[in-house]
Amino acid sequence: MYPLESRIGRGTIGCAALLAVALFSNPAGAQALSDIKPSPPLVLQQQGSFYVGGRIVYSDSTGWDSIGLPDFSTGDIAVDQMYVQFQIPVNAKHTPIVFVHGCCLSSKTWETTPDGRMGWFEYFTRKGYPTYLADQVGRARSGFDATPYNEVRAGATPTTQAPILMAAAQFAWQVFRFGPSYGVSWPDEQFPTDKADELYKQAIPDLILSTIPQIDPADFFAHQFDPELDIPTPARMAELAKQLGGAILVGHSESSPFPTQAAIKDPTGIRGIIQLETGCFTNLTAAHVDILKKIPILIIEGDHFDTPRPPAACVTMRDQINGAGGDMTYIDLPSVGLHGNSHMMMQDKNNLKVADVIMKWIDQHVDKRGRRHRHHHYAHR
Amino acid sequence: MYPLESRIGRGTIGCAALLAVALFSNPAGAQALSDIKPSPPLVLQQQGSFYVGGRIVYSDSTGWDSIGLPDFSTGDIAVDQMYVQFQIPVNAKHTPIVFVHGCCLSSKTWETTPDGRMGWFEYFTRKGYPTYLADQVGRARSGFDATPYNEVRAGATPTTQAPILMAAAQFAWQVFRFGPSYGVSWPDEQFPTDKADELYKQAIPDLILSTIPQIDPADFFAHQFDPELDIPTPARMAELAKQLGGAILVGHSESSPFPTQAAIKDPTGIRGIIQLETGCFTNLTAAHVDILKKIPILIIEGDHFDTPRPPAACVTMRDQINGAGGDMTYIDLPSVGLHGNSHMMMQDKNNLKVADVIMKWIDQHVDKRGRRHRHHHYAHR
Repeated sequence: MYPLESRIGRGTIGCAALLAVALFSNPAGAQALSDIKPSPPLVLQQQGSFYVGGRIVYSDSTGWDSIGLPDFSTGDIAVDQMYVQFQIPVNAKHTPIVFVHGCCLSSKTWETTPDGRMGWFEYFTRKGYPTYLADQVGRARSGFDATPYNEVRAGATPTTQAPILMAAAQFAWQVFRFGPSYGVSWPDEQFPTDKADELYKQAIPDLILSTIPQIDPADFFAHQFDPELDIPTPARMAELAKQLGGAILVGHSESSPFPTQAAIKDPTGIRGIIQLETGCFTNLTAAHVDILKKIPILIIEGDHFDTPRPPAACVTMRDQINGAGGDMTYIDLPSVGLHGNSHMMMQDKNNLKVADVIMKWIDQHVDKRGRRHRHHHYAHR
Repeated sequence: MYPLESRIGRGTIGCAALLAVALFSNPAGAQALSDIKPSPPLVLQQQGSFYVGGRIVYSDSTGWDSIGLPDFSTGDIAVDQMYVQFQIPVNAKHTPIVFVHGCCLSSKTWETTPDGRMGWFEYFTRKGYPTYLADQVGRARSGFDATPYNEVRAGATPTTQAPILMAAAQFAWQVFRFGPSYGVSWPDEQFPTDKADELYKQAIPDLILSTIPQIDPADFFAHQFDPELDIPTPARMAELAKQLGGAILVGHSESSPFPTQAAIKDPTGIRGIIQLETGCFTNLTAAHVDILKKIPILIIEGDHFDTPRPPAACVTMRDQINGAGGDMTYIDLPSVGLHGNSHMMMQDKNNLKVADVIMKWIDQHVDKRGRRHRHHHYAHR
């Protein structure tokens, strides 16, 4: 679910199943492990995982009748909880940072890259950030409510189950801007396209539509940038920031609007907003701006867009926020000397340089402010 | 999917949605984070994640048509890949160990416990083990093939989509042996039942049935203990052990038969088999025994079973393996002085003591053998 603006003006993706099999050079997976590069030891003050939020609902269809155990086929289940893993370095010295992945992916996004290099989870930790990764509600370790799918199997109307989104290889190549056509890379492409097969393995079913039953899937894009969209993950992000006593929230792609939506829901713990490709709103009210002008905001985009940067929505939002005395920055990476970056900038070959751009902004816009105001915490205890 | 033997003789679970709401004391999730206990710093030689295996298939229904983007609604997707996260301590001194979770759960099983204590992922790492956690194929970050669900929404026959299993609170309380009736704990119960709500959040949809389309769901239990069951996760576990140059494989509950099934598929990298509740086979051929007698095997069970231990299947298997010169050990925790353990022994209040029992067995049965044979590796590079 790439922001709408960037989906315009792209040709039909070429479908080439045979080519994909050839590209999928690593069916046994041996390459992925042996690719992983060593680094100096990492010293953690603390690590772990936990869930944020969630509520109990009664399920009349937990699936067990299908395997002959009808006694277990109903009961109370947790839904809307958000899984979070974290690591806190010794001598943490920055505001905690929370990363949330995009469409059809999981927190794997921020871990080891497809070609075995260090991801942002480890890099931010090494640089002194208490670092948190959240699996979106409806995805991966956060889970989803499977009840409607079991009900349909038992006879309910099929449209009562939400569509499940998957990112195909051809989709990823085009929308993540790996090159001009499927299987062909841009000459200066920073994504390690020779290991694109490892990215395709990261693509898992996305049940975001199951978490917003109030919205007809056909109308999804009309609501994605509603600042007050009632969707669980931004709500959980706001709760997490509050629990941490202050945190920077980072969204990417599908989740790029989430940090802003989280702030509008509850800005209490949100010390900074970072949105990667892209999450710019054109429909903010004065009340929204009044909240957002108090939070430093950074929008980052990569290279190889086919329309001029910044996109019109980001200009509109920046003018609105900064016109009200806020602090919103737009950076397209080529403007700071980084060329060839894809939509998956956190996995690109220069991913640590991109992280450095972000850290520099945090230092200047969040941590300095924090030191002035003396009211943020570097770890949750 | 608790082994069949243990499901017998239990009463109907009381359904009590209102009680569950009362038990679910932490809707905001604040408790989960603030519960987490500090420890001395952890020094890692390496950390990261990768996928094992996987293959490309063509999907005719990736869901995008439902949100108005039909051009993206077909393409090539990866299936059957297995997500693995790992950490290797400095001065690793033991055989690598791979943990695979049970039904309706994820690798969260082995991380921070529901009441905020250290899980086995960190504890084994601290004790010198290169430690790997795998999300089962069809679950969490390993993903599943959502094509049939989208096809059903578009008009295909509902039974073409596999049932999805969820563990309800009432199911967990009974099957995980928290107490004699829902909401009531055994007097010596080791599971932190006051934080059972945090376990319910860990319960996520289990799509194992989607990974074995050749088996009618109604016949699942007739095949679960087929030593040659063609199911992706054990195959990936065998591949991972081989890639690591030697590893101990650990299964739990639903995955308890997986280490044995992995060894029968390819024993090359498997230096030890540990099966937690329970995974004992009564249908091994001479060829199977010939493989298994060369691998140390440990079966562990907790407390509060309502039939005598060891279960008959484990006696049969142990007699068969050891009668052929093998090395299979059965331990029920009360017999070594640990009482009150639940099915979730890796999260019980004495979880580190249970881990110590396992490490002692590894030292005596796997690492000593490794030192004699001088052919195992402590890390993958």
